[in-house]
Amino acid sequence: MKRIGLLTSGGDCQALNAAMRGVVKTLAFSGEAVEIYGFLEGYKGLIYGNFQMLTGKDFSGILTKGGTILGSSRTPFKTIREPDPNGLDKVEAMKQNYYKLKLDCLVVLGGNGSHKTANLLREEGLNIVTLPKTIDNDLWGTDMTFGFQSAVDIATNAIDCIHTTAASHGRVFIVEVMGHKVGWLTLNAGMAGGADIILVPEIPYDINKVVDKIEERESTGSKFTIIAVAEGAISKETAKLSKKEQKKRLEDYPYPSVSYEVADQIYKMTGKEVRVTVPGHTQRGGSPCPYDRVFASRLGAEAGKLILEGEYGFMVGYRNREIVKVPLDEVAGKLKYLDPDARIIKEAKLLGICFGD
Amino acid sequence: MKRIGLLTSGGDCQALNAAMRGVVKTLAFSGEAVEIYGFLEGYKGLIYGNFQMLTGKDFSGILTKGGTILGSSRTPFKTIREPDPNGLDKVEAMKQNYYKLKLDCLVVLGGNGSHKTANLLREEGLNIVTLPKTIDNDLWGTDMTFGFQSAVDIATNAIDCIHTTAASHGRVFIVEVMGHKVGWLTLNAGMAGGADIILVPEIPYDINKVVDKIEERESTGSKFTIIAVAEGAISKETAKLSKKEQKKRLEDYPYPSVSYEVADQIYKMTGKEVRVTVPGHTQRGGSPCPYDRVFASRLGAEAGKLILEGEYGFMVGYRNREIVKVPLDEVAGKLKYLDPDARIIKEAKLLGICFGD
Amino acid sequence: MKRIGLLTSGGDCQALNAAMRGVVKTLAFSGEAVEIYGFLEGYKGLIYGNFQMLTGKDFSGILTKGGTILGSSRTPFKTIREPDPNGLDKVEAMKQNYYKLKLDCLVVLGGNGSHKTANLLREEGLNIVTLPKTIDNDLWGTDMTFGFQSAVDIATNAIDCIHTTAASHGRVFIVEVMGHKVGWLTLNAGMAGGADIILVPEIPYDINKVVDKIEERESTGSKFTIIAVAEGAISKETAKLSKKEQKKRLEDYPYPSVSYEVADQIYKMTGKEVRVTVPGHTQRGGSPCPYDRVFASRLGAEAGKLILEGEYGFMVGYRNREIVKVPLDEVAGKLKYLDPDARIIKEAKLLGICFGD
Amino acid sequence: MKRIGLLTSGGDCQALNAAMRGVVKTLAFSGEAVEIYGFLEGYKGLIYGNFQMLTGKDFSGILTKGGTILGSSRTPFKTIREPDPNGLDKVEAMKQNYYKLKLDCLVVLGGNGSHKTANLLREEGLNIVTLPKTIDNDLWGTDMTFGFQSAVDIATNAIDCIHTTAASHGRVFIVEVMGHKVGWLTLNAGMAGGADIILVPEIPYDINKVVDKIEERESTGSKFTIIAVAEGAISKETAKLSKKEQKKRLEDYPYPSVSYEVADQIYKMTGKEVRVTVPGHTQRGGSPCPYDRVFASRLGAEAGKLILEGEYGFMVGYRNREIVKVPLDEVAGKLKYLDPDARIIKEAKLLGICFGD
Repeated sequence: MKRIGLLTSGGDCQALNAAMRGVVKTLAFSGEAVEIYGFLEGYKGLIYGNFQMLTGKDFSGILTKGGTILGSSRTPFKTIREPDPNGLDKVEAMKQNYYKLKLDCLVVLGGNGSHKTANLLREEGLNIVTLPKTIDNDLWGTDMTFGFQSAVDIATNAIDCIHTTAASHGRVFIVEVMGHKVGWLTLNAGMAGGADIILVPEIPYDINKVVDKIEERESTGSKFTIIAVAEGAISKETAKLSKKEQKKRLEDYPYPSVSYEVADQIYKMTGKEVRVTVPGHTQRGGSPCPYDRVFASRLGAEAGKLILEGEYGFMVGYRNREIVKVPLDEVAGKLKYLDPDARIIKEAKLLGICFGD
Repeated sequence: MKRIGLLTSGGDCQALNAAMRGVVKTLAFSGEAVEIYGFLEGYKGLIYGNFQMLTGKDFSGILTKGGTILGSSRTPFKTIREPDPNGLDKVEAMKQNYYKLKLDCLVVLGGNGSHKTANLLREEGLNIVTLPKTIDNDLWGTDMTFGFQSAVDIATNAIDCIHTTAASHGRVFIVEVMGHKVGWLTLNAGMAGGADIILVPEIPYDINKVVDKIEERESTGSKFTIIAVAEGAISKETAKLSKKEQKKRLEDYPYPSVSYEVADQIYKMTGKEVRVTVPGHTQRGGSPCPYDRVFASRLGAEAGKLILEGEYGFMVGYRNREIVKVPLDEVAGKLKYLDPDARIIKEAKLLGICFGD
Repeated sequence: MKRIGLLTSGGDCQALNAAMRGVVKTLAFSGEAVEIYGFLEGYKGLIYGNFQMLTGKDFSGILTKGGTILGSSRTPFKTIREPDPNGLDKVEAMKQNYYKLKLDCLVVLGGNGSHKTANLLREEGLNIVTLPKTIDNDLWGTDMTFGFQSAVDIATNAIDCIHTTAASHGRVFIVEVMGHKVGWLTLNAGMAGGADIILVPEIPYDINKVVDKIEERESTGSKFTIIAVAEGAISKETAKLSKKEQKKRLEDYPYPSVSYEVADQIYKMTGKEVRVTVPGHTQRGGSPCPYDRVFASRLGAEAGKLILEGEYGFMVGYRNREIVKVPLDEVAGKLKYLDPDARIIKEAKLLGICFGD
Repeated sequence: MKRIGLLTSGGDCQALNAAMRGVVKTLAFSGEAVEIYGFLEGYKGLIYGNFQMLTGKDFSGILTKGGTILGSSRTPFKTIREPDPNGLDKVEAMKQNYYKLKLDCLVVLGGNGSHKTANLLREEGLNIVTLPKTIDNDLWGTDMTFGFQSAVDIATNAIDCIHTTAASHGRVFIVEVMGHKVGWLTLNAGMAGGADIILVPEIPYDINKVVDKIEERESTGSKFTIIAVAEGAISKETAKLSKKEQKKRLEDYPYPSVSYEVADQIYKMTGKEVRVTVPGHTQRGGSPCPYDRVFASRLGAEAGKLILEGEYGFMVGYRNREIVKVPLDEVAGKLKYLDPDARIIKEAKLLGICFGD
């Protein structure tokens, strides 16, 4: 008999339910008796002992459902060791609830921050298995995270819609894609949507290069230009600033986001009006795409298998087209950035896409 | 032998191509010899004589294509009687090009402003037939415009995506839907997406009622609330101001749009963080939905029939489920607002939807 | 305090859940105390007393969900007065369960057959309110039924997919669309998908006209032809047979469906291979489209209102863009056929679409 | 100055246009002067010298377009060395046209059969570069082919639609997925759609195991079962027959396809009616999904690079998440089957999916 805790932490994304269903189905079909404790709203549920007992039925029909049936919340790693407003020691509280419920394992579905906390709990002696959830695809130790491809689909769809309107009006359009630190999502949605310029955090841009591209297009008869800009895109000048100076700069920042700054610069340099579209949180929502459903189900199945075999302390990841287990301490605290020299970037450049570098 | 001019004017929308294809197919299959002059970028093309000769081939395969193969632009009615920067009399220029090409008829696909200009050209003696294009569904004289249902689909899809993320995080979310003057699109997308609160220009809102609804939902266990806000939503206080005062108010407006003001007010009154999503121009783009393809094709066919019969001076509209011809002077200069007492509003209220009134 | 029974009967379709949600939300927000009895699997649940007590919670989040949370089944009207295998009088059983539960009203969501039974129960003295459910749009007394537009979307999407493959290979393709008796769905999906030929039950076809159209297209450079065929399409010769002869003909019918017969005839007459695609039951499934969600919600709200006002014996329908109540005895036993002289058919013909007549 | 031939061969699929656009954009942006000869309808165009001169403009806007702008046809490898009806030596004809046009390279987008012919042409001394096109994902030498993920999306969507109707009616449903020889598509769509049973050619099925699974589901309260069946699924008994016996068996086969045989067997063994849905050719059509657009663009870019570098005789493939070049003689004549012991199969079994083995 196994007693398993389950929680989803951080920003929600597609296929969280599919992944949990994978874990639970695997346990259920294994023949082993299992009790599932679903902690509500991420680590908060574990801290305050808010949970629901769940059965196989609760996971039936949720393969295609967006969001998470457990709810989620951000519980910043930075403050995890600080007591809560009532003086509660959060780490101790999590441990106590874990032991009180006599859990054999805690399954955490989360992104970067969540993995730091997961690793901390592992260090504290809890049995942990994690699953790589994020639309950003920036988790270390895995080639792919679930949610990513679904987000690519939504962001691409936004670019597709903008394409027809940009072409009809001969305009410059910016589509702002999620991604404060990494550019995977913007790069893939930009390529899929046929963007002419793609600005990502890993490749600081020179606004002159951006304007050159727009004018080159115009000179060859293309009246419109589509620019995919990551939330965290950064200019060469800003990139040269110290972190402290960057932070200060943002305090007086007159734009809602970098896309509006880029738009303003293009306007000032060319006289062209630039429209900005921000699909925003829609990129985390809706039903997972088939790719993510299969992928999350596979990861869930392998997590279930690890639990049945009593192998703890791992994230279930994906490398070179195989599902692998990655030690949690390798994962925690690292980000998987886009390499500016990666093959895919070179290919994008072969296709004429401008990165502003 | 008929010589037909064709132009698409104003903001683009879905099914413009489908409608033009309908006109041209009808003329082509009629057996009558036809020459098609496609004016580029709306009335601008007619003013400056920029056009392309088009054949049936050019309209093949465009039923499903978003945007407009002719390009579009806004040529404001307000300044149509003023000379252009080079001193050109725009109305005269349009007439001269019409007569020079010996056109039998000019087909205009446009929204409100475009219909004013179309009616002006009719008064000047040109043969005009128009088609009701706008995602806003605010054209007088027709129950429906093409583009509307496609925009409803896109805006609804955005709300669907937000729904899963709002539910997962127990948050208040605003989705800002296009519509500066009328609320048809917001109302329909809001109802289709299961929004709890819908704010439209025709029903000024009281922010207290909005907050009451959020709190009522929370008290009955619903942790999240979705609000669909039209771009032109307006509070009761603002609605009481004179147009002049309203304009002045907007000059110092600290928010990118009304949604952010609503979000801010809710935050100040409840302490709840409110996220805003703005699908923006995506609502005009992409492939037309099947409803719009059938509808635009039908309108196009009837426009073709009018041309073959030599009946000019009409918009082809839709009333009580029948395609009808509506005299242009009835259409021009009027807006079709949502009636706050309309049956559909009452039904929405029966379903528990709050309009803030 | 109201006690309301609810059942969904016949083939399932999209927006059944949306419609039920509309009824229940309206009752819930009215302030009146309500008990909801959900009968399982259509009339069967009423006959055998299989039901679940439902609350508002059960209807939360189902606006976008396909199928029916109550399950459905076909309980043929033909045999409704015959005892069941165990000798049970079905009509009496339904009445007894209705009275035993002290229902104030039974809400039936169904199509043609289900309306006959609903009217029978009304004649037997029960309070009945119905909602028009069918992808076929063939219910008498209403311009529109929910499910229809969603099915149009799916069938159109199938034609869209076939279009690219037909164009690439220069082939003749048949897409078989649901509709044994009426052609609304085939007509609308055919027009939306750009079909060149549309065959519907109401317009018997001459295969020579079909072949002429294919050859006319070829002679003008169009190498492929798309044919939308309703399940119940019928040739002129077969249409002349008596019902008895038609039935006999079907007994020895060597084809899986009429599409294959049409394909075979075209092959024999032209030597062209014709591919047949049958989207089948997918046309009833999946999430309802935004149009259907709004429409079903509106109908549900008005049904809720009728119940609150104690007005029974009606179907809530839609005529001339207004929601109306239609006496059940007007609805039962009639089919709403496509009129071969309808404006939409004429428009389709203007566009060059061939109906084989 | 480079002179490049381009052809698309075999059954069409999604992203053919995206891949060609990738090749042509790369050549165009390289600065090298290029002439593009687009051969029409596959190898036929090369044999009979039917081609069009194409420019960058022709490849603009086709990233999202399904099908192939060049048309395609099947030119069976089996008969490629036989003269055509007029006595023409096909291989010689292709060589002559290649040399007559002074081509530097021929780019072939095709699947299995097309690669055999491509390799033959290479052996005959032509410069060949190929791209792996097939919804079946069965090409040797590459982990992935373009078209595959788009087809998974469409087949999954069909299963999703069937899911709601199956659940509503408590029925057994079969969805027949494309794939005569390999099961990649059925496996992935089945997993993504939540199928309970998946039958693929590589794992012969025992109908008793299939029935057991249906009954096991029923005994645990699941009234419906979804079965994804590949076109080439095969029973254990049939698999034991010699190829000759198998062929003979098919001659008298009373079913349109194996799905109907499975349906019939289940009906006979359980009395349950089983519905069959065949999405058929829709699986090859429509706009490519974002994954395929990125993937095909990348392959196209790398093919363009090979051409610029004068490296011929390769298929551009994908292995371990990197784009690689694979010698054509390694690719030709081999099929990439699903390994019954593959990790993904084991994972599917962990999730409770039955393969009938």
